[in-house]
Amino acid sequence: MADNTWSRRHIISLEDFTPDDYQTILQTAASFREVLSRRTKKVPALQGQVITNLFFEPTTRTRSSFELAAKRLSADILNFSPGSSSLKKGETILDTAKTYLAMGTSLMVIRHQHAGVPTIIAQEMDRINSGVGILNAGDCQHAHPSQALLDLFTICTSLDAANPHIDQLQGKKIVIVGDILLSRVARSNIWSLTACGAEDHLVAPPTLLPKHFLKAFKQPDSAVAKVGQADSHDVIPERKLQLHWQLEPALEQADFVMALRLQHERMSQHLLPSLREYHQHFGITRQRLQLCKPTVKVMHPGPTNRGVELTSDLMDDPELSLVPMQVTSGVATRMALLYLIGGVK
Amino acid sequence: MADNTWSRRHIISLEDFTPDDYQTILQTAASFREVLSRRTKKVPALQGQVITNLFFEPTTRTRSSFELAAKRLSADILNFSPGSSSLKKGETILDTAKTYLAMGTSLMVIRHQHAGVPTIIAQEMDRINSGVGILNAGDCQHAHPSQALLDLFTICTSLDAANPHIDQLQGKKIVIVGDILLSRVARSNIWSLTACGAEDHLVAPPTLLPKHFLKAFKQPDSAVAKVGQADSHDVIPERKLQLHWQLEPALEQADFVMALRLQHERMSQHLLPSLREYHQHFGITRQRLQLCKPTVKVMHPGPTNRGVELTSDLMDDPELSLVPMQVTSGVATRMALLYLIGGVK
Amino acid sequence: MADNTWSRRHIISLEDFTPDDYQTILQTAASFREVLSRRTKKVPALQGQVITNLFFEPTTRTRSSFELAAKRLSADILNFSPGSSSLKKGETILDTAKTYLAMGTSLMVIRHQHAGVPTIIAQEMDRINSGVGILNAGDCQHAHPSQALLDLFTICTSLDAANPHIDQLQGKKIVIVGDILLSRVARSNIWSLTACGAEDHLVAPPTLLPKHFLKAFKQPDSAVAKVGQADSHDVIPERKLQLHWQLEPALEQADFVMALRLQHERMSQHLLPSLREYHQHFGITRQRLQLCKPTVKVMHPGPTNRGVELTSDLMDDPELSLVPMQVTSGVATRMALLYLIGGVK
Repeated sequence: MADNTWSRRHIISLEDFTPDDYQTILQTAASFREVLSRRTKKVPALQGQVITNLFFEPTTRTRSSFELAAKRLSADILNFSPGSSSLKKGETILDTAKTYLAMGTSLMVIRHQHAGVPTIIAQEMDRINSGVGILNAGDCQHAHPSQALLDLFTICTSLDAANPHIDQLQGKKIVIVGDILLSRVARSNIWSLTACGAEDHLVAPPTLLPKHFLKAFKQPDSAVAKVGQADSHDVIPERKLQLHWQLEPALEQADFVMALRLQHERMSQHLLPSLREYHQHFGITRQRLQLCKPTVKVMHPGPTNRGVELTSDLMDDPELSLVPMQVTSGVATRMALLYLIGGVK
Repeated sequence: MADNTWSRRHIISLEDFTPDDYQTILQTAASFREVLSRRTKKVPALQGQVITNLFFEPTTRTRSSFELAAKRLSADILNFSPGSSSLKKGETILDTAKTYLAMGTSLMVIRHQHAGVPTIIAQEMDRINSGVGILNAGDCQHAHPSQALLDLFTICTSLDAANPHIDQLQGKKIVIVGDILLSRVARSNIWSLTACGAEDHLVAPPTLLPKHFLKAFKQPDSAVAKVGQADSHDVIPERKLQLHWQLEPALEQADFVMALRLQHERMSQHLLPSLREYHQHFGITRQRLQLCKPTVKVMHPGPTNRGVELTSDLMDDPELSLVPMQVTSGVATRMALLYLIGGVK
Repeated sequence: MADNTWSRRHIISLEDFTPDDYQTILQTAASFREVLSRRTKKVPALQGQVITNLFFEPTTRTRSSFELAAKRLSADILNFSPGSSSLKKGETILDTAKTYLAMGTSLMVIRHQHAGVPTIIAQEMDRINSGVGILNAGDCQHAHPSQALLDLFTICTSLDAANPHIDQLQGKKIVIVGDILLSRVARSNIWSLTACGAEDHLVAPPTLLPKHFLKAFKQPDSAVAKVGQADSHDVIPERKLQLHWQLEPALEQADFVMALRLQHERMSQHLLPSLREYHQHFGITRQRLQLCKPTVKVMHPGPTNRGVELTSDLMDDPELSLVPMQVTSGVATRMALLYLIGGVK
């Protein structure tokens, strides 16, 4: 399962990921999904290595997923919790990271409430030639690459379980609905889905999806250039990205509908009138899904507010919902990411 | 050590447990206690399986006991902590449980501050044919089956260490003193002890033991019927259960005295005048124990308020106190429970 | 690697440690440091044993270091967290410790905000012949032996990496600067460094270093007697200890400068005028280090306040700073301590 073509030591954002990168991740995740179906679900790939979870922003779901992935790879895990930490005693974030480096950490999984923290730690780790790999587990609104990669693995697996391949995404219409402006999940998914040739449609009320939002992603020249440099697939995708302020037109002939979690704080920030109003205009319902392709699937990164982002019966419909598969894919995908960056010399 | 007669996938309450069920648990716990006395204290019984501790109500002691039991069975453990969890973000409890299911959990240990939550999760897990087993680690005042089962194992072990057997309980007089009305430990112990043929005597001030309390357990017909259906022991026990508002008469010729933890909140609820008053009337003392059989043993589920439920010197008397043995039995009993429900297909 | 000469079941304080004790620890830590440099970083030394971290005072750094040390020795680990514990329910500290004993704990690592708690638990564990070993991980201002021992290992390793030996400390000048009065790190380092023949110089403003401070350590007769009884090295060290209220004179010809962490609380206690004032008089700077030997090294137990106890550029200078080596030494030293007291019958 060793992959000699992978050379990224860190996974911070998907901005410059090539189709080859995505395909390597899909294949590696698929092989780990096979491991997880065995009776003995462990491989000794990272035995003796220390993975430190630096979760400055508390989370249960993502930490559990990474923790299980690390255990399945036979790594030792240290959990940093900010509550009782040295940060309160005046230590800088870089010094905290270096302390865990000095204890013998070789991989750090970092979540932080400020964008850019994983980048800064990765730069410092490289500067001092630490050899440590950094995996961004979510930094504010910036990026959440492991979520987007497990979404990619879920979509491709749902299209061909035996052999998930990015080519299957060519021309697929994928709709992302919700809290786009403030969502790191949306941002990371836009990079990966469009790079793999899918059409990405973003839907939100104007307060959560201003016109200028697209600017960050409309870099056809540089995107083409990057992909070209990577000496990769012959199909060089342009990023097909479209913005909608209404749900129904966006849903027409959609292959996948991804609802984002709506944060309750948005109400108090006056970005939305009410949850009921939001659901009425942007909630995914069985009726609205009739506008999509008959094979449409619904996704959600979780945790969900049932009856807000999507109706409760859709969540529980195994024919329509890929939500449980997303969680399962999460463990296999995170095993793949830790394995790949853990193997970079 | 495989047990082919065990068929319960969940352990939520002991209400319908048969003498055969109890005896199977005693035998399995005894064999694990033997494992714990070896130099290498592990068995590979649940290797590769994921056990998730969903402890919505925080606890240290019970979580540690379950965690150690799971480690001794070579399982992987995920700890859910409500403090930093998705619940605050609007997720339902069932969705939280399903998320851990999708990560690969095969056994869930659940503690919740509301009665019935483990039942609801177990029903949903069965409805979707998840194959997951649920172990109730305490749900409000309803039930705390693993505590009652470790108490049973402790009592039977103290009567015959080599071969603990429920038959030894026949006719034994067991006194439970304290916060009966609000105690899940008392409720679960009543079901198990009476089902195994012991006489159970409950002692508390009227505010903590109203007359109607017995109603829930006075179902001789249904109890007999259930036990009969189970095609079990020839001795079909009627539940021998008696209520006392004074301690001394209850203690006469007692074989075991179990003091319950008194929660400090009871004072502010005006159910008790003061801790001193409580100890004066219901505290277990060396003098009062002279009313019991000479072989009497004292128990407490912990944590104890020394000088309230029982005097400090009784706690520290290895001839009288079974409290440390209860804790030790806890690990072996919980190993047995996880092992048994983990083996149900 | 078995050491038959070690007979201390507990490590609470270094007050009566002999040069032989220190040398045994150095040698054992050196062999574990070698283990940590292998690809498979584990030894089965404590397999099946339960190590319980009773950290009543929260900490991340020290807990992570002990946790990793325990994992490297293949022990099972239980973490006690006071937040959700039985202590709030009225349980005594001794009963909490006995509960973890009854679960099968053989080693306890204890941190507490009150001096003496590890001693009291150790005495009780011995009284009941539990066989449990206690390692003090910091008790208020009293002692923090594992920190002083990792500092000793760091100093001796920096002097001779292949063969760290206490004889190398003879006549070395070591300066400790900072919050001396309230520092358990300073107290433990004073015992170890002077016992190994180093000259120890303490520097602080008078509010943090009153004249009477030395009294506790000026016991040349008893110190000699203790060391003599231990039938140890032929060089019996007198404790060479000197007090300074100014930094510059102390730094002259120093071999090692150890800055202590300044707690922000000190300002509100009116023991210091301001952090800036402190740095101006007692901060370690590149210029001040020119007073020391050219081979001088800077140490800090962490977490550091950059720009207060020492300048940021010193922290980051691999030629001058031993700070990362202190953290790395911490894992090897704690492995050695757990291994040594874990082997006492």
